[in-house]
Amino acid sequence: MNSKNFSKHSEINTVKIDDTFWNKVFETVRKDVIPYQYLALQDKIDNAEKSYCIENFIKAGKVCEDIRKGIEPATYPVDRWQYDENNSDKNAFHGWVFQDSDVYKWIEAVGYSLQNHPDKELENKANEYIDIICEAQLESGYLDTLYIINDRNKVFSNLKDHHELYCFGHLAEGAISFYNATGNRKLLDTACRFADLICRTFCEDKIKGYPGHEIAEMALVKLYEATGKKEYLRTAKFFIEERGKKPYYFDMERGKETVNDNYHYNQAHIEPKYQTEAVGHAVRGVYLYAAMADIAKAYNDAELFNACKSIWDNIENKKIYITGGIGVTVDGEAFSFDYDLPNDLAYAETCASIGLIFFARRMAECEINSHYADVMERALYNTVLSGMAEDGKSFFYVNPLEVLPIASKVDSRKKHIKPVRQKWFSCACCPPNLARLISSINEYIFTESDSTIYVNQYIGNHMTSDKADIHIKSSYIDNGKVSLSVKVNKPFVLALRIPGWCDQYNISENYKIENGYAFIAIKESCTINAEFVTEIKMIKCSNKVRANIGKVAVTRGPIVYCIEEADNGKNLQLLKLSNKPNFIYKDGNISADGFREQEDSALYSNYTSPNFEECNIKFIPYYQWGNRTENEMSVYIRI
Amino acid sequence: MNSKNFSKHSEINTVKIDDTFWNKVFETVRKDVIPYQYLALQDKIDNAEKSYCIENFIKAGKVCEDIRKGIEPATYPVDRWQYDENNSDKNAFHGWVFQDSDVYKWIEAVGYSLQNHPDKELENKANEYIDIICEAQLESGYLDTLYIINDRNKVFSNLKDHHELYCFGHLAEGAISFYNATGNRKLLDTACRFADLICRTFCEDKIKGYPGHEIAEMALVKLYEATGKKEYLRTAKFFIEERGKKPYYFDMERGKETVNDNYHYNQAHIEPKYQTEAVGHAVRGVYLYAAMADIAKAYNDAELFNACKSIWDNIENKKIYITGGIGVTVDGEAFSFDYDLPNDLAYAETCASIGLIFFARRMAECEINSHYADVMERALYNTVLSGMAEDGKSFFYVNPLEVLPIASKVDSRKKHIKPVRQKWFSCACCPPNLARLISSINEYIFTESDSTIYVNQYIGNHMTSDKADIHIKSSYIDNGKVSLSVKVNKPFVLALRIPGWCDQYNISENYKIENGYAFIAIKESCTINAEFVTEIKMIKCSNKVRANIGKVAVTRGPIVYCIEEADNGKNLQLLKLSNKPNFIYKDGNISADGFREQEDSALYSNYTSPNFEECNIKFIPYYQWGNRTENEMSVYIRI
Repeated sequence: MNSKNFSKHSEINTVKIDDTFWNKVFETVRKDVIPYQYLALQDKIDNAEKSYCIENFIKAGKVCEDIRKGIEPATYPVDRWQYDENNSDKNAFHGWVFQDSDVYKWIEAVGYSLQNHPDKELENKANEYIDIICEAQLESGYLDTLYIINDRNKVFSNLKDHHELYCFGHLAEGAISFYNATGNRKLLDTACRFADLICRTFCEDKIKGYPGHEIAEMALVKLYEATGKKEYLRTAKFFIEERGKKPYYFDMERGKETVNDNYHYNQAHIEPKYQTEAVGHAVRGVYLYAAMADIAKAYNDAELFNACKSIWDNIENKKIYITGGIGVTVDGEAFSFDYDLPNDLAYAETCASIGLIFFARRMAECEINSHYADVMERALYNTVLSGMAEDGKSFFYVNPLEVLPIASKVDSRKKHIKPVRQKWFSCACCPPNLARLISSINEYIFTESDSTIYVNQYIGNHMTSDKADIHIKSSYIDNGKVSLSVKVNKPFVLALRIPGWCDQYNISENYKIENGYAFIAIKESCTINAEFVTEIKMIKCSNKVRANIGKVAVTRGPIVYCIEEADNGKNLQLLKLSNKPNFIYKDGNISADGFREQEDSALYSNYTSPNFEECNIKFIPYYQWGNRTENEMSVYIRI
Repeated sequence: MNSKNFSKHSEINTVKIDDTFWNKVFETVRKDVIPYQYLALQDKIDNAEKSYCIENFIKAGKVCEDIRKGIEPATYPVDRWQYDENNSDKNAFHGWVFQDSDVYKWIEAVGYSLQNHPDKELENKANEYIDIICEAQLESGYLDTLYIINDRNKVFSNLKDHHELYCFGHLAEGAISFYNATGNRKLLDTACRFADLICRTFCEDKIKGYPGHEIAEMALVKLYEATGKKEYLRTAKFFIEERGKKPYYFDMERGKETVNDNYHYNQAHIEPKYQTEAVGHAVRGVYLYAAMADIAKAYNDAELFNACKSIWDNIENKKIYITGGIGVTVDGEAFSFDYDLPNDLAYAETCASIGLIFFARRMAECEINSHYADVMERALYNTVLSGMAEDGKSFFYVNPLEVLPIASKVDSRKKHIKPVRQKWFSCACCPPNLARLISSINEYIFTESDSTIYVNQYIGNHMTSDKADIHIKSSYIDNGKVSLSVKVNKPFVLALRIPGWCDQYNISENYKIENGYAFIAIKESCTINAEFVTEIKMIKCSNKVRANIGKVAVTRGPIVYCIEEADNGKNLQLLKLSNKPNFIYKDGNISADGFREQEDSALYSNYTSPNFEECNIKFIPYYQWGNRTENEMSVYIRI
């Protein structure tokens, strides 16, 4: 850990995206995704699964009003994860226990969007929701609609399974984003009141518990950075230090001992500083690991950082799909064992790849190592982008690497794998998470230390900082070319990441390579041109991964490609690439010469060398799959 | 259907096995499996899952006694599939709803064993259980311990999920076997009393229901053949005719309509005569299909037989593993969609392959086509034999084609796949089913018509019949050679099956090939020598099966081989056969020259042709896998 290299306080002031590739995605999120989700949160999308999110806040607001008036509100059970119209009183809470977080993520996305593109109408819509949310806060500062509506006496009694601290985390992150965009403190003050209650409640001489679903840790660090209130940082550290200690808090809370799994699902099996492997529910995992990196950096804690490094290495080298997907198994939406990366059973939740980007950015802020930004890029351009339809109106929760539609329909082992994007989900964590990540993509381009600005992602933008203003013009995705116009305010070092996928590059200034970055001393204003030669590549997966032996994936720059039935016919397993294919790149797609094995008829027959016909194979970017029709898809192809 | 070719009444009198390969298996079943299961049924095996089977009969016997004495017995719920010590009163029924069937299957196995090898001690043990069983029958003839112990007023109220008719089926089959072996009618009379009640209860003007788990149909046909009582055959036909009619009986019984699946699980979605595809729970399926063939033959019903043919073709050409395993998916222990034959997720229950043998034998009795006996052989020598350890003391319920032990331990998607055989199962249908199938293997060797004796399996035996006495000496498994000494009683035609796996054969007499059999006119006593040239073969699976593309399985005669970690090291996926390997067969095992891909380290890297080292690959018979230690196993290997 060399966090001393990194500034505690950013000298970067603004980063405004202007990029041929990303402008379109941004606009889709701003014009389509965010307005669509505004309606979805109020259950105004036809034929979509119900959210109940705003409905719950309105109900909770009424409860608060009743309490102020001295009216005793009704109570309802709080014994489940999900409450729908069939199993709950109509006046009770509805939806999943974490439903509140959806509007918070939506507000966070709105905040980022407004920072890039002011939009009074959108700001008003957010304020409308903020008013509803703030009405639902109890006098104590407590804010979670499940418990406010259903049973005020039971708050914080089921940290393991319920999501009060998780919802708080999203509240804080949303509030900070909106405050940064608008200067409006209303939601931020609400978040701080809840944070204050949490800091009073969870501490050495009160409840020594910690979140069942992590994120509050990361959010408290952010809230500390936004407000300067040290107590928030200390509580984040407290949560991480208490986690996994024996006797288990979750055992005490439940009044019984866990059997077998010892809370691996919640990463609470041992203390984080002793963890070496990514385990359990993947989104929870990466949210925790990101916070561990935050705390390691804030307290210069080498032991905790070493745990982060171990976990990172485990993910990067043994538990990540080529698409940046993590959390292989539907069973607990969880990490699996090393090298278990099946294509057709993949879970690879969109949120998990988003969380991995959070973890990666924080690691990049702790240590100069281009791998962090490489993984960030892998996740961003493949699994994250795949999570959203081109029109921004449907979403993938699960991101498989091989799809056979009939299997998803008739085979319960694959029912989590949807062959087409869905309009909404009752458990709708992914769509608003996507909106907030894409809207804040400007935060992932640079990291900085006292002397150096690191360029991690080659996304076109105008950046202003105390050191320099940098205008990046990028056609990185198209041809690997980047031009950086630097207007120097004071001498500094510019460090350009050499992408992990790139074997050959040219940079127009003198540079020195270290830890995967080209370091360039900048004394005066200049324009730097860099070209990362973008070849079409065949990538081999480790032969420890059983599913991919004898196969390759085709990539170009950071983009992973796939084959679809719409272009290549049924039975994609019959296709085979030449050993040295003649690849042609055109309009973002790739074609190659290859072979198609002739379909046979007998189920079992004496082996003879298969017959192949020459054919042309068309590849499209993985993130575009499933945008035409329900059909077969595969990332890997035989060679 | 050319059932007119087949005798209604067998002219075959006795078939006594004497075979180098099977004698050992027989002796294991007689000396180890049957005595072991005798103890298991009484819960006298340490560290094995509990059966409760005999315990339930004793409890039910007490209830019957109380009723006779005018004492009103207690009642307990009958609302579940499984009742264990934690969720039931100690005086109530325990175990699964179908637990009675285990002792019936055991008695059936004992009966077959006694026919081949009289054993007074074993006969006494069976009589001891028979006495306990007969004490548990109600005056009405009803006999199912779940309802007798728990609630007499609710009998036959849940045909869909409960197993009264299923248990009856096994009772009848066990009773017939024991009667044939010993002439002792006690259990047969009990079975007939229950059958009479069933015939009175299920008919046009009473309950128009049918079994949720089929087998009663097949058993009633057998009971008709054993007793000559036509009513049994008519009731079997009634069950098949009522099945799947709308409105669904199961809907009426449950008082609500089924949603989505329409009873595919129970093969009750449409009338059997209109069914064309194998669907739903595989064991239920093949038990139904076997009975459909029985009824088609008995009533010369071409429409029903055509349904059987369609379903057979669907299984043989699209839904069977090379090992004879069927019922691919753990989800409902069911058939999956065409060509869905994953190796590492296979269910392939031992009982399903046993049921497939029942179906195959009945088809072979309806139509001259060697495919039926081919499939019977495939299932018998691979999945069925694999179901039992060499010492007869542990068993596989599930028979995968690829095993990675860590996956079975940590991955819930594969938790049904046990890397070692289990001592017993709470749901212990397979071990006693295995015992009864193996003990009755003599019934699967011949079929006959008025003029012809068909030899379907080349298992050494002494057979006596009205046409001829035939002594088969066989080293079929070892070298494909068979010698048949025929002592003619009257001229007839002998039809020798040409095994589907055999490309070259020699038969010492003149013959004519038709429908996969060599027909030889026999006028006088003679000895016929046949050799089915037994090569080691590489078998290709259809390229519509995604899991096996680019791979082969190695076979020799009917035996499918596999590779194990114990012989070939970890990471079996790294092994690759030469295109024309030099196979060596020794002591039942096979070795071949091949290659081992060097293990790589990077998870993702630029594709280069993999490096291989030459190596020797050892194959063992699939049925022997998992007999040494917990380890990796694979049937398919890259080529």
